[in-house]
Amino acid sequence: MQEIKVTLTKNPKKKPADESKLGFGSIFTDHMFVMNYDEGQGWHDPRIVPYGPIELDPAAMCLHYGQEVFEGMKAYKTADGRALLFRPEKNMARLNRSNERLCIPLVDEAFCVEALKKLVGIEKDWIPTAEGTSLYLRPFIFAVDPQVGVHPAKHLMFLIICSPVGAYYPEGLNPVKIYVEKNYVRAVRGGLGFAKTAANYAASLKAQDEAEEQSYTQVLWLDGVERRYIEEVGTMNVFFRIGDEIVTPALQGSILPGITRMSCIELLRSWGYQVTERKLAIDELYEAYQKGQLKEAFGSGTAAVISPIGQLKWGDEIMMINNGEIGEVSQKLYDNLTGIQWGKLPDTMGWTVEVK
Amino acid sequence: MQEIKVTLTKNPKKKPADESKLGFGSIFTDHMFVMNYDEGQGWHDPRIVPYGPIELDPAAMCLHYGQEVFEGMKAYKTADGRALLFRPEKNMARLNRSNERLCIPLVDEAFCVEALKKLVGIEKDWIPTAEGTSLYLRPFIFAVDPQVGVHPAKHLMFLIICSPVGAYYPEGLNPVKIYVEKNYVRAVRGGLGFAKTAANYAASLKAQDEAEEQSYTQVLWLDGVERRYIEEVGTMNVFFRIGDEIVTPALQGSILPGITRMSCIELLRSWGYQVTERKLAIDELYEAYQKGQLKEAFGSGTAAVISPIGQLKWGDEIMMINNGEIGEVSQKLYDNLTGIQWGKLPDTMGWTVEVK
Ligand SMILES: Cc1ncc(COP(=O)(O)O)c(C=O)c1O
Ligand SMILES: Cc1ncc(COP(=O)(O)O)c(C=O)c1O
Repeated sequence: MQEIKVTLTKNPKKKPADESKLGFGSIFTDHMFVMNYDEGQGWHDPRIVPYGPIELDPAAMCLHYGQEVFEGMKAYKTADGRALLFRPEKNMARLNRSNERLCIPLVDEAFCVEALKKLVGIEKDWIPTAEGTSLYLRPFIFAVDPQVGVHPAKHLMFLIICSPVGAYYPEGLNPVKIYVEKNYVRAVRGGLGFAKTAANYAASLKAQDEAEEQSYTQVLWLDGVERRYIEEVGTMNVFFRIGDEIVTPALQGSILPGITRMSCIELLRSWGYQVTERKLAIDELYEAYQKGQLKEAFGSGTAAVISPIGQLKWGDEIMMINNGEIGEVSQKLYDNLTGIQWGKLPDTMGWTVEVK
Repeated sequence: MQEIKVTLTKNPKKKPADESKLGFGSIFTDHMFVMNYDEGQGWHDPRIVPYGPIELDPAAMCLHYGQEVFEGMKAYKTADGRALLFRPEKNMARLNRSNERLCIPLVDEAFCVEALKKLVGIEKDWIPTAEGTSLYLRPFIFAVDPQVGVHPAKHLMFLIICSPVGAYYPEGLNPVKIYVEKNYVRAVRGGLGFAKTAANYAASLKAQDEAEEQSYTQVLWLDGVERRYIEEVGTMNVFFRIGDEIVTPALQGSILPGITRMSCIELLRSWGYQVTERKLAIDELYEAYQKGQLKEAFGSGTAAVISPIGQLKWGDEIMMINNGEIGEVSQKLYDNLTGIQWGKLPDTMGWTVEVK
């Protein structure tokens, strides 16, 4: 494995005084991991350096053609002061699936997990400890060739930056209101939907904006072909408890395969719930709702962990779910996931990785 | 109108010695235009400064969420030494349509045309003069908020950079071989297809790569819903001469409304050709080909102007068009467009704008 050179900052920043006001993703720690790719050399010069600006040629491809991928994960501080990562190898595996789709040279997944651990080790004091807070980790790769022409890049950068965060939604664990999007499409079969890449988020901005204007927290995307099948929410996968079944849209290329989604499915099944990954039409959901069979709905994602959905607006129809309150399955998943992540429950699944 | 502050370089670069070897988009001139947007202030501080690197926070949104748009246009040098732009107001209008879709604050189109003229005026000696060469102009906007969370940016940058270019395709005016893409999708109705934005190009990289591996120059995209209707080529719109009709896919949201496309349609109609903007299925095209009615095919775009298509591969079927030679309509369009652009023909359409 390559050696990671470390240069520590001489000007450490002040850490946030009030951990209840962290918000999400606007404060960054003292250091970052950086590594370069150059054709012929492969990924080289892995290093941890003081957090600071990067210099780009104005023609750098990432500013024009969106050849960039990223990951999102967290480090958690346990009550006894240990730092834990949650299934980091899954994120690095997904990063490589995104790389593959975006014609970005693959990274060494095991090495990237080591880099992550080394960085988090150095930034350990930045992991906040207040209830629900954590250190958000953002590995990302972007193309830097100064070249105005659409071709896969030959020069790229890989960075990891860290941000102490609180709740992703101001609502916290309170149920959110979600708007079913009828006009805009985020991703379609054959496109980039399954990759964690800039394009999908760029495509979501306008719908998200219009939803917020109508006081909805995020949009629920429908498939781009028939505009009928439920896909995912802005930055979460979705689950519905319909009768005795827990349904989540199958992974068919247009949605992100969430690590939280995967973990929810595994936990639910270990508890004996029937979880089905399948196509779920919005009209089928509405029918179940009318029959009183839609008992719970929730989103799953690293940022919000579990986010109960209290209201779904589909055209003129409003579905009020579980009286706008958090349901038992959502609560149980939240308690268990956060329990494992923050080391409050035994990690029976072997999901956490301690940073020494 | 805001004043554009000019700071000239003290270290002018050497201009390319051999204009036959310019290639496309890898050489940049001495200066660039820059302007900033900050919430509350609007677009401000327009300036022309020496071409050089920009500093970005690693959390800058453009590196993660692809909130970025661009334009592509050219400045041409006439035989008597004048510098001409081609319908620049159309590019700035399209830029604003892209901005609107990407939640980017609109720019003042007339002011941007002035900025362009001022920059090209300063870089006039960089416009190459060899046959088929020009100065490619790349206006672009990207989000710079250091914020890891998916929201429209409050801080952005607008730049214009210039690159002396030769032919976009090594083939020049020789017919290119194009591959009909069956698996990957570039954009879908409801998505970003009509905007000139990073996402669409990121989505195209892999298909383009696979096409090149099979010795095809670019791919022809089919629609994302039925995967049947012809959309456009990598960086060009497409036209087909079928019997007495010239057909080009209608603008229905998923393809880029090319300025060259628009100009071709206007020229063809002014010459009395019947041009139809409509849905065109790939199987209809193949049928026409089999009946001997497919007489010509060509792509249109700023970079390549007119690029005749000599071969189209659709699954196992290969369509050889016009014996792999340039057709009469393609040639006539090329001659007239380049004639107007380089000032060799009278500009009867009023399309060129001289840079004084
Ligand atoms: C579009 C999208 N879907 C789903 C998720 C959930 O994925 P994960 O559970 O891996 O965080 C995310 C991200 O974080 C996302 O951005
Ligand atoms: C996807 C795409 N389609 C079509 C075109 C042609 O547009 P224009 O004629 O304005 O250059 C371009 C660009 O240059 C393009 O990138």
